[in-house]
Amino acid sequence: MNWDNTLTRLLQIKFPIIQAPMLSVTSPQMVGAAANFGVLGSLPLGGLPPEKCKELIQQTRQLTNQPFAVNLFAHSLPETNTNEISKMQQLLEQIASEFNIKIEKEEIDKSDFYTAEDQIEVILEQKIPIVSFTFGVLSDNSIEKLKSEGVILIGTCTSVEEGVFLAKKGIDVICAQGYEAGGHRGSFIFDKGLPKVGTFSLVPQLFDAVQQPIIAAGGIYNGRTTKAAMTLGASAVQIGSCLVASDESLATLAYKNELKHASNNTTVTRSFSGRWARGINNSFIDKIEHSGLNIPDYPIQNKLTAKLRQLAKQKDETALMSLWAGQSASNAQQKSTAQILEELVTAIETI
Amino acid sequence: MNWDNTLTRLLQIKFPIIQAPMLSVTSPQMVGAAANFGVLGSLPLGGLPPEKCKELIQQTRQLTNQPFAVNLFAHSLPETNTNEISKMQQLLEQIASEFNIKIEKEEIDKSDFYTAEDQIEVILEQKIPIVSFTFGVLSDNSIEKLKSEGVILIGTCTSVEEGVFLAKKGIDVICAQGYEAGGHRGSFIFDKGLPKVGTFSLVPQLFDAVQQPIIAAGGIYNGRTTKAAMTLGASAVQIGSCLVASDESLATLAYKNELKHASNNTTVTRSFSGRWARGINNSFIDKIEHSGLNIPDYPIQNKLTAKLRQLAKQKDETALMSLWAGQSASNAQQKSTAQILEELVTAIETI
Repeated sequence: MNWDNTLTRLLQIKFPIIQAPMLSVTSPQMVGAAANFGVLGSLPLGGLPPEKCKELIQQTRQLTNQPFAVNLFAHSLPETNTNEISKMQQLLEQIASEFNIKIEKEEIDKSDFYTAEDQIEVILEQKIPIVSFTFGVLSDNSIEKLKSEGVILIGTCTSVEEGVFLAKKGIDVICAQGYEAGGHRGSFIFDKGLPKVGTFSLVPQLFDAVQQPIIAAGGIYNGRTTKAAMTLGASAVQIGSCLVASDESLATLAYKNELKHASNNTTVTRSFSGRWARGINNSFIDKIEHSGLNIPDYPIQNKLTAKLRQLAKQKDETALMSLWAGQSASNAQQKSTAQILEELVTAIETI
Repeated sequence: MNWDNTLTRLLQIKFPIIQAPMLSVTSPQMVGAAANFGVLGSLPLGGLPPEKCKELIQQTRQLTNQPFAVNLFAHSLPETNTNEISKMQQLLEQIASEFNIKIEKEEIDKSDFYTAEDQIEVILEQKIPIVSFTFGVLSDNSIEKLKSEGVILIGTCTSVEEGVFLAKKGIDVICAQGYEAGGHRGSFIFDKGLPKVGTFSLVPQLFDAVQQPIIAAGGIYNGRTTKAAMTLGASAVQIGSCLVASDESLATLAYKNELKHASNNTTVTRSFSGRWARGINNSFIDKIEHSGLNIPDYPIQNKLTAKLRQLAKQKDETALMSLWAGQSASNAQQKSTAQILEELVTAIETI
């Protein structure tokens, strides 16, 4: 298979593969290993304070001399509804107590929340060559600033409509995230509800609709799926779930072991963060969704559930953890990132 | 591209393409045109009385000398709940009256319902060489009878688990219906809820799990999607939505025109028939789903809504019609079945 295309040249990568930015799963070590192997490493920075972004970027730079991308959340902050928040807090305390976990009320203070706009200066200062983003579109001002510094922009879409929107904004590369994909949905045009378009419908129709190179995400885990995605019109593939169980992943062993049962057992839920995301079904999702309560928007719900998720993780209580996983996640291997990538590349070459 | 494989030889087709059986859309003319072109035509017979099955088979035989498949519904009949039915009837009358349509109460009599078991004798008598089925698995007795006559069996799955179940039953060919597909979902194992696995996750994982040849369904509409499906592990593709607007389709012009707006505007609903099916969003779906009423199981709801759908169709009232469509249905062309197939085959050859 010929690796050389407009996108691999633009991103300066040997192989047409992107390591997905997975907040709370992707470590600087994973990004470093990916970049050193010759694929695009992506450091997830969504929602982090600027000083933390700087620290993680510098940590990653210690591990690789190759260029890598950072990933930002391009959303705006929602209004806070005190009544909604207080009811959700009560429910979370009750769920926690059922599992003998004690949590305190989280104070919601908007000044604790960071958006992409707060992070742009540090990204520019750190001379990051590639910025990917999800949950929306960066502000015109940020796009202009980044572009004037020669930064390559990768936007995320979950429908043809969103992809065309990004293309019209002059975004260089479009990541098409199919409904199969694990973790948070990049969706940002909701007038027809949450887009639920499968990779197999999204990628070829987006290819017909835009000029930009496309990265396919959702369901890619081996040689056949990589080659099929490129046949559909993608110039590269993004792999997430199949790196969750890697040695460099921040996922706990309990989470990694759960992936084996992911097939046909994932769901798309707002329970954990207030934004739609695909993960393995568990009690937490069930209890939140059947409570009948309104789930506060991201990042409010994300903050409300943070302590509970952290304590559940410490106790290996998978019933309460966010176990992000795509529809092909049961193929994830507990190996090093380099080994997983090596096997993938070998498999593609023998297709 | 090399067309010749185990499946094309087994089904005696020139091209690795199956014309999907679409009840109320596929006519004997469509099946005849497909079979004459060199793909597998499939005549939908699900739920029809045996004498009607015979009539349609004979009508199709007038149009082609080639072998074709018939498609059956392999479900069992649900219990009737008079209270549930009566509430649904009231709602349907109310919806009809909002559109100045008058409907009478439908009498639900189980003896009016036909399952695959009622149709097997006529299928055998008519010496049909290939039987595909959906909504479940044929009874062991029917499988044995058909197999002993040399009939090739094609089962439908929507999850790897369902596909493995069919394989263990000795079904010859497995049709993997991704979540992108239009019309009724073939799902029959619901213990984890309705399977929502995309084509891009279903086909390659099923390929890893079973020995049988696989037909990929859901999202196939051009050369790239056909080739990608075969790269994922399919031996043939099934096309449905892209034949709905064909000259031989029973769809009305109003329905055909709606397909242009299908992209990211389809939903999976039980509103029309009591079984999950993907179609274009409209008022009817909205009203039924927001009523809070229990929707009676297939085929009860199907019968309850039959008259309303028929009258809506006559009046071109798309707000009340079942507009089955997959996630790539906006690519459907208003041309003859032969032309659509010719363009598809040419496109595959130039990939």
